[in-house]
Amino acid sequence: MTDLQAILDGIHAELSPRIGEGKVADYIPELAKVDPNQFGMAIATVNGDVYSIGDAAVPFSIQSISKVFMLTLALGKVGESLWKRVGREPSGTSFNSIVQLEKEEGIPRNPFINAGAIAISDVVLAGHEPREAIGELLRFVRYVADDETISIDDRVARSETQTGYRNFALANFMRAYGNIHHPVEHVLGVYFHQCALAMSCQQLAKAGLYLAARGSNPITGHSVVSPKRARRINALMLTCGHYDGSGDFAYHVGLPGKSGVGGGILAVAPGIGSIAAWSPGLNKVGNSQLGAVALEMLAARTGWSVFGD
Amino acid sequence: MTDLQAILDGIHAELSPRIGEGKVADYIPELAKVDPNQFGMAIATVNGDVYSIGDAAVPFSIQSISKVFMLTLALGKVGESLWKRVGREPSGTSFNSIVQLEKEEGIPRNPFINAGAIAISDVVLAGHEPREAIGELLRFVRYVADDETISIDDRVARSETQTGYRNFALANFMRAYGNIHHPVEHVLGVYFHQCALAMSCQQLAKAGLYLAARGSNPITGHSVVSPKRARRINALMLTCGHYDGSGDFAYHVGLPGKSGVGGGILAVAPGIGSIAAWSPGLNKVGNSQLGAVALEMLAARTGWSVFGD
Amino acid sequence: MTDLQAILDGIHAELSPRIGEGKVADYIPELAKVDPNQFGMAIATVNGDVYSIGDAAVPFSIQSISKVFMLTLALGKVGESLWKRVGREPSGTSFNSIVQLEKEEGIPRNPFINAGAIAISDVVLAGHEPREAIGELLRFVRYVADDETISIDDRVARSETQTGYRNFALANFMRAYGNIHHPVEHVLGVYFHQCALAMSCQQLAKAGLYLAARGSNPITGHSVVSPKRARRINALMLTCGHYDGSGDFAYHVGLPGKSGVGGGILAVAPGIGSIAAWSPGLNKVGNSQLGAVALEMLAARTGWSVFGD
Amino acid sequence: MTDLQAILDGIHAELSPRIGEGKVADYIPELAKVDPNQFGMAIATVNGDVYSIGDAAVPFSIQSISKVFMLTLALGKVGESLWKRVGREPSGTSFNSIVQLEKEEGIPRNPFINAGAIAISDVVLAGHEPREAIGELLRFVRYVADDETISIDDRVARSETQTGYRNFALANFMRAYGNIHHPVEHVLGVYFHQCALAMSCQQLAKAGLYLAARGSNPITGHSVVSPKRARRINALMLTCGHYDGSGDFAYHVGLPGKSGVGGGILAVAPGIGSIAAWSPGLNKVGNSQLGAVALEMLAARTGWSVFGD
Repeated sequence: MTDLQAILDGIHAELSPRIGEGKVADYIPELAKVDPNQFGMAIATVNGDVYSIGDAAVPFSIQSISKVFMLTLALGKVGESLWKRVGREPSGTSFNSIVQLEKEEGIPRNPFINAGAIAISDVVLAGHEPREAIGELLRFVRYVADDETISIDDRVARSETQTGYRNFALANFMRAYGNIHHPVEHVLGVYFHQCALAMSCQQLAKAGLYLAARGSNPITGHSVVSPKRARRINALMLTCGHYDGSGDFAYHVGLPGKSGVGGGILAVAPGIGSIAAWSPGLNKVGNSQLGAVALEMLAARTGWSVFGD
Repeated sequence: MTDLQAILDGIHAELSPRIGEGKVADYIPELAKVDPNQFGMAIATVNGDVYSIGDAAVPFSIQSISKVFMLTLALGKVGESLWKRVGREPSGTSFNSIVQLEKEEGIPRNPFINAGAIAISDVVLAGHEPREAIGELLRFVRYVADDETISIDDRVARSETQTGYRNFALANFMRAYGNIHHPVEHVLGVYFHQCALAMSCQQLAKAGLYLAARGSNPITGHSVVSPKRARRINALMLTCGHYDGSGDFAYHVGLPGKSGVGGGILAVAPGIGSIAAWSPGLNKVGNSQLGAVALEMLAARTGWSVFGD
Repeated sequence: MTDLQAILDGIHAELSPRIGEGKVADYIPELAKVDPNQFGMAIATVNGDVYSIGDAAVPFSIQSISKVFMLTLALGKVGESLWKRVGREPSGTSFNSIVQLEKEEGIPRNPFINAGAIAISDVVLAGHEPREAIGELLRFVRYVADDETISIDDRVARSETQTGYRNFALANFMRAYGNIHHPVEHVLGVYFHQCALAMSCQQLAKAGLYLAARGSNPITGHSVVSPKRARRINALMLTCGHYDGSGDFAYHVGLPGKSGVGGGILAVAPGIGSIAAWSPGLNKVGNSQLGAVALEMLAARTGWSVFGD
Repeated sequence: MTDLQAILDGIHAELSPRIGEGKVADYIPELAKVDPNQFGMAIATVNGDVYSIGDAAVPFSIQSISKVFMLTLALGKVGESLWKRVGREPSGTSFNSIVQLEKEEGIPRNPFINAGAIAISDVVLAGHEPREAIGELLRFVRYVADDETISIDDRVARSETQTGYRNFALANFMRAYGNIHHPVEHVLGVYFHQCALAMSCQQLAKAGLYLAARGSNPITGHSVVSPKRARRINALMLTCGHYDGSGDFAYHVGLPGKSGVGGGILAVAPGIGSIAAWSPGLNKVGNSQLGAVALEMLAARTGWSVFGD
């Protein structure tokens, strides 16, 4: 598929003058230090090919994109009973809102807002020490990406631990409703470490490939989830993956996706491939500005939108 | 595609014992009179074939499904500037909530909640008398369905006019913010009449076919919208089409869809076909109980989910 | 009590340079025309004396102050059963918020926010034509003020009718919950006319005297309500009389009071007297800026605060 | 004033059959153990007399009543600048709601809801170790009550520390907005200890006397606050002292008051005296059921309501 490389190169050329746009997340001190003048993109196809442009080999903090992997782990652990602990509906509010938690008595709206991901961390933590749960996630991500070099950036994890008051608030609030079962410090220990996973676009595209390929990684042959579960995770990414910008992403891009405040976005073209885009500058709703634009261009030029070609 | 008829027959046989499940909408007096023991389904494919089962030829009140056609009309009239008047995000609240309207100063979250659809009616009304706007919609629906027998049930429209206090509240509230430009009575006159469109599953499946077929009706050859706009309407249906049950529908069915309290659901399989299901009994979130189940079965058996096969 | 006149004169002298401060309400066209350079104040004591300064004889639109008289009428009509229709708690929101109405299913928080006053209008309307209910209120206000010249400004009533979309929204919303029993147009007809009562500070101070004097007007000897009911209306004025500025008014002035967007404030010093202050310019929370300052000065200089001298 | 003792005895006799009514708070394990069959009441007058009935000498956990003393301390420490950190308006929500905190960006509505009291603890903590701040409060309460035997129940403090997840949520949430300056554990250490103050009705009535007596304790002659500040604290108690039941308490009792989930209520009759009532069973809004009834009877029989006799 030389076409794909050509399409990526075209996007790269077109976006080059705009690299540096948007605003780097500043509420996590370590993230605020990242150089905004970076942009990369990688596609891993179900055929086993990988295409990339720009800074596609540079590791960045995947932040909330990790919620996709943790959701996969939690579903593997407790199955559909997970949905007693967390909902499956878009929230209509920002990523760290606590309002709906009060109205809905400690049950977060979906696994991709902070409260939901914290509840998921609590599920994954069951029967483990925090260190073990973090290890389990790291092994899982290395497994799906088929890359043993992936690691966690401890400085980022520490930075979030020291400043993540709002996440402490969310976790304590859910604990008050009985929807967090472990000590809040343990749960957030897991949560902050998962957010601090450092991956490049190339690693991330490969890691997400199982979602595009009926639940199995076509390169390694490893089965990760059933086809049905892969579809369902994709559905959740499409409806809830970009916080209160999910509708907009579906409208413009038309692919299941999950963004992180580190500037990364993981998108899935079912049956075709997995795409990672990264540029640290964020738009007003907290998603990578250039990443979203690049994905919109890609979807338009490939006809990959799930909503029609 | 004899397969498709066999799949539909299988669904029909399996669901027969359950016909009558759910609760018929009772807040509109005329709808409360509908016999709950009805179930029908029809598929119109991009190849021009139509398959159906059960009460697929019985007209019912399409109610909120009409919001898809009105959105199409409004986009045709004012283009993307429509999005100054209404948002594109899931609401996270029930279909008739007024709370978000206050917080977001009269701009409804999306075109598929009541407030959004009322704003859309106001857009379609521009330059028209109410009667003309209703006529325009009726002509449009007859055109896309290629069926001149489709009509509006005046008793239903009257019934809603007399009891739709909450819609009067929404319209007046938006007018207070300047987001309704015409007299509230006129706007709601249009709105109540669009909801009172009576269509059968067969008519509805054909009417929705342009959304599955890159914006054109493959049977008549009529071009309705551009491929891009068809994709975008599908995206909105998937993220916002079932009110606060949109995430759940995406999770279980995996197709863009729009439900109505009359018990109908219109779903779109891009590139494949348009599906209408109908059964008057509603589930807890106000969508057709059997309709949703039937669509889930269909998607599972055909592999039509947009999120992977 | 020559002292009182001296105190009023002192306040007048001190505030003279500030007359014109604040912002005249502009959302009701007729009110926007009022000259901001006006200030008046009157005190009617339980001994039958009346003191006044400035423009105390100039009639102005009392607006929401009328809610005190309507509440008195409604309690006379249905007694304590009134509290099934409306609450008695501060709202924590602005005067025209609709949010709490949804959460609390059509029962407004208290009689002094718009929704509550509209429900009260519906109660007073029972068994009457709108014209009769308006007549009953006018007779009542003339009776308690002992002044047959008090009238309703029809231009103001008309102006509100034509622009009061938000009140139409509130009324329709409550009607949807069954908490408005009459046609919305009738209820709002009464509501808009009560708001359009035109009274001077002198008339208003006398009209409120029954609340300071155990329920009876000491000048005319007319009994209006029982001592217990007078106390209770005062309690409601103190906790809810200034919308979301009620706590602030209690903190700074320490008297039961009710403000209107026409720039008037009626305050009650139980056992001592009734005070009316007026200046059209409003502060940020929608209460008369100079009126509130003048009352704070009066309370400080007389020791009339109900919270101690 | 033998009358007062007679009135108290009458109330005691009348309420005796009802002792045990209501529901003891069970969300703090230590409080859940309290015997519900207790009732006491004490009045300390500005003349220096103390009247009491029932279990007026039994110490109980004053819980939120301590917020009155902490507010007094904080105002003494930072004066009116305190109001940059906390508002002065009724909340319209329950005592531990977090919703308004998000809307109002970390500034609690008033000092008497949990969030507000936690912010006040942070203010009192400035320049101190937690132990010192707790010591300062204890000294202050002993001073105003003129009673060195008053102490803090460490088991209650510990019990709240271990289960107070919601308060941890509130504190972390405010810290995220920069409205908590000290480590959350320190602030809540102070907060939980203040709530665990154990006092009898007699001690509490004497401790609150300065609020009834122009800011000074007439028995000891100690000056605590200025007359103006005493009035203002009373105003806050009246508008905000009973969470979302403040309007109801003002309506039925007509005195500034502050309740605690331990079943105590402190009320103030300005210029007359300070009253403490206690019975562990709570009503639906979380205030002492019999305590509120007893105070309503007392106000009715004495004519002490601030809203008229």
